Amino acid sequence: MASDILQAFEPIFYPRSVAVIGASADISKFGNVILSAIMEVGYKGKVYPVNPEAEEINGLKVYPSLKEIPGEVDFAVLTIPAPLVSSALEECLRKGVKGAEILTSGFRETGTPEGRRMEEEIGRIAKRGIRILGPNCFGIYCPESGLTILPGQNFSREAGPVGFLSQSGGLCADLGQMAKGLGIRFSKMVSYGNGCDVAACDLLEYFFADPQTRIIAGYLEGVEDGPRFLEILKNNRGKKPVILWKAGLTETGSRAVMSHTGSLSGAAEVWKSVLQQWGVVQVGGAEELIDTIYAFLYLPGNAGPKVALMGGGGAIGVAASDALDRLGLSLPVLSPPILEKLKASFPAVGNSLKNPVDLGNPMIPPSMLRKVMEAAGEDGGIDTLVVIQILFYILYQVRHRLGRDDKPLSQFSFQPELLKACQEVQEKYGKPILLVLPDIVTDGKMIDLEIEWRRERDNYQAAGFPVFKTLDRAARALSHFVRYHQRLPA
Amino acid sequence: MASDILQAFEPIFYPRSVAVIGASADISKFGNVILSAIMEVGYKGKVYPVNPEAEEINGLKVYPSLKEIPGEVDFAVLTIPAPLVSSALEECLRKGVKGAEILTSGFRETGTPEGRRMEEEIGRIAKRGIRILGPNCFGIYCPESGLTILPGQNFSREAGPVGFLSQSGGLCADLGQMAKGLGIRFSKMVSYGNGCDVAACDLLEYFFADPQTRIIAGYLEGVEDGPRFLEILKNNRGKKPVILWKAGLTETGSRAVMSHTGSLSGAAEVWKSVLQQWGVVQVGGAEELIDTIYAFLYLPGNAGPKVALMGGGGAIGVAASDALDRLGLSLPVLSPPILEKLKASFPAVGNSLKNPVDLGNPMIPPSMLRKVMEAAGEDGGIDTLVVIQILFYILYQVRHRLGRDDKPLSQFSFQPELLKACQEVQEKYGKPILLVLPDIVTDGKMIDLEIEWRRERDNYQAAGFPVFKTLDRAARALSHFVRYHQRLPA
Repeated sequence: MASDILQAFEPIFYPRSVAVIGASADISKFGNVILSAIMEVGYKGKVYPVNPEAEEINGLKVYPSLKEIPGEVDFAVLTIPAPLVSSALEECLRKGVKGAEILTSGFRETGTPEGRRMEEEIGRIAKRGIRILGPNCFGIYCPESGLTILPGQNFSREAGPVGFLSQSGGLCADLGQMAKGLGIRFSKMVSYGNGCDVAACDLLEYFFADPQTRIIAGYLEGVEDGPRFLEILKNNRGKKPVILWKAGLTETGSRAVMSHTGSLSGAAEVWKSVLQQWGVVQVGGAEELIDTIYAFLYLPGNAGPKVALMGGGGAIGVAASDALDRLGLSLPVLSPPILEKLKASFPAVGNSLKNPVDLGNPMIPPSMLRKVMEAAGEDGGIDTLVVIQILFYILYQVRHRLGRDDKPLSQFSFQPELLKACQEVQEKYGKPILLVLPDIVTDGKMIDLEIEWRRERDNYQAAGFPVFKTLDRAARALSHFVRYHQRLPA
Repeated sequence: MASDILQAFEPIFYPRSVAVIGASADISKFGNVILSAIMEVGYKGKVYPVNPEAEEINGLKVYPSLKEIPGEVDFAVLTIPAPLVSSALEECLRKGVKGAEILTSGFRETGTPEGRRMEEEIGRIAKRGIRILGPNCFGIYCPESGLTILPGQNFSREAGPVGFLSQSGGLCADLGQMAKGLGIRFSKMVSYGNGCDVAACDLLEYFFADPQTRIIAGYLEGVEDGPRFLEILKNNRGKKPVILWKAGLTETGSRAVMSHTGSLSGAAEVWKSVLQQWGVVQVGGAEELIDTIYAFLYLPGNAGPKVALMGGGGAIGVAASDALDRLGLSLPVLSPPILEKLKASFPAVGNSLKNPVDLGNPMIPPSMLRKVMEAAGEDGGIDTLVVIQILFYILYQVRHRLGRDDKPLSQFSFQPELLKACQEVQEKYGKPILLVLPDIVTDGKMIDLEIEWRRERDNYQAAGFPVFKTLDRAARALSHFVRYHQRLPA
């Protein structure tokens, strides 16, 4: 069965040829944006623009209709007015096209009888032998085969382990941008809009079967077939992490869902209990979604709820304690012998060593942090290390005080040394380490800090360590990871 | 009584002369950092470094002790080891110093009998005629008089309406950085650490009396005198907004408070009900704190809970609806005649006009947004306009598609035109407008978007419009503002 669904979707995710029906030379039209994006992202198969009124677009020969295309067409992208969609699909059937995505909107989501009728017609055509994505969607992004979504042109060309399904195209576009610098890469991302044929159930089934997908994530407004959806989750429970943002759970949200994709959104409590029962990680927004995917990508399986938190600055410790406590994570006091050893390394004054470990000084030298990391590594009561290097902006201060305002910030950074400490401690004790590097500067003139931050983050990530901008975000993502692995107390 | 407290604190916030006891030539020591910072931020009075082992620091003559200083000293900054603090304070008393801040830690927060004993001694000295801030604090930032906090060197030199009191020095340092680009300026910011003499009650009283302070905000771990604190809030209820982050409200957080400032943090429920009763805006973290201050600074008094939300992209609308609904804000359907008029301006397909208004296209031309803004302005059922220009990153796409990758992003920006629309609509209808401009790009190579974002944000702010990076943050801040003004349904 798994191989059936992989085979069925092969011409859709890995088409040998693609027709863009409604291709346009006008760069402001979707019909040009999508054609250009597919070409730029590096689709290697044949691309056939279709438009009765053009001869050449982006240097490609244009065909007046699908039937004039000489070779076979596996997949069609439709970006033509809604009333023309069903006859174009009929042509697709005649040409033997296996799959189509309909970018056009103006169907069920309008709430009009005409919109519903046209969408039902598409659904009926689909049953006659073509799989259809949309309408009212942004399409498929599959870096391995070179397909991309709207607008998509600057999406990463690298494939990765995350399969993403979404009723919102805008969220797919956003997620691709959010993911890019975080090293999150996708196997397939599918915006399915109104989902008149292919929708959540098929895609979930596909992602469970797809060997390229290790982590499944999604944005849902409603589900077309509840019992089937639950059956798929139940049958695959624990096989791959599933991270879902189910939106429209309030009254106002539910009304907005209706005008967006015309779905029925369902009651919040039902969704919550159902998703929890089948081991789904439920998130509540785009930031939480990306952070959770990020944690699942970077954290090793032994990340647990007993956290040692270290950094400088008491309020961070207090705020962190509040945040972790609320999320079911704990900050156990270090075990007595470890604590005694640690105390011997630090002056009694200006430090609080129990956990959270506050080393007083706002910019803590990595050599000091390393001692705490070693202690937490050695302590059998600690699962996970969270290192906060607060006052990142103090780099400015350090540079200024050394009279080197003309030099790049990177020359004054403690991060390379801290990264080395993280690597050595992790190698020695095998415990996961999360970094929290707040970059809170809002000043337009201090942009070099953001540049430096992104550079250092890339270095940590390349070494396998996730970097979060706030402790709250790190704690929430860790908590989802730990809960999924059922290591949280009830 | 109000004038009494202003007068009592005059030599502390506006000293004619300052002695830095423990001034150092070593740039890594607090005794140099604080001296340099005060000089750089522009303190105009006399500065006397005190250190028996130096002759000149930062070009200033050093005095071996306080008594050798020829003139009067209003204020002393102490950055000397804890065991030397009380005798230095005795010298301050003899010299007639009116106020002192003790940056040194190693007192009550260590949890040792010796630490407690030394702190009690400081408290007793204070009662003999000197007001003391700290110990274990970062001091005072008062741009009007040129005082600053640790490290403080790059804090804004402009004064403003926000009075901030904090048990955490690190948070003050952070807040100064967060505030800088947002146009948030301070009357006084006071880090009072363990608060053995001057603490929350005095500062709250002072800020209520201070004509420079219009908005009071604070970070509290505990309060030294609960009944007095409540009395002050009660007596001043409604005079000035008070925005408080009360930390340490969980069990773990409460333990962390004890090792940070040695305070007793109290039960969450008690705090919540008490703060609510006296009209205090209670926030739960640094980001929420700064966002709320920002909203109180930029929003006009008529900002109300009935929101019209407009932008492009359905998921944003759905997510926004969920977020607003949870916060007690509403998204009323536009009134029938307004809706009809609006419908006449847009094609039926690809738009959802009811509210949230989703204009389909991810990068909405300002001329289209203006039509929706006009409608919401005209609609008597709407209080507040929230404009979301999502896919900010699509600027890259636009530039690229026009074949101008070599030009600055600013040349392709819709924002100046959108800003003009905001100004004209606000002038015409007088309703508050909030901008949400998500900048979600994480890629290190796409830093020019962040530069462009900050530039445009500055332009909106200069025209009086607040700009948030996420809808959730905007909604939370608006909700605090509206609740304070008691315009939210119960």
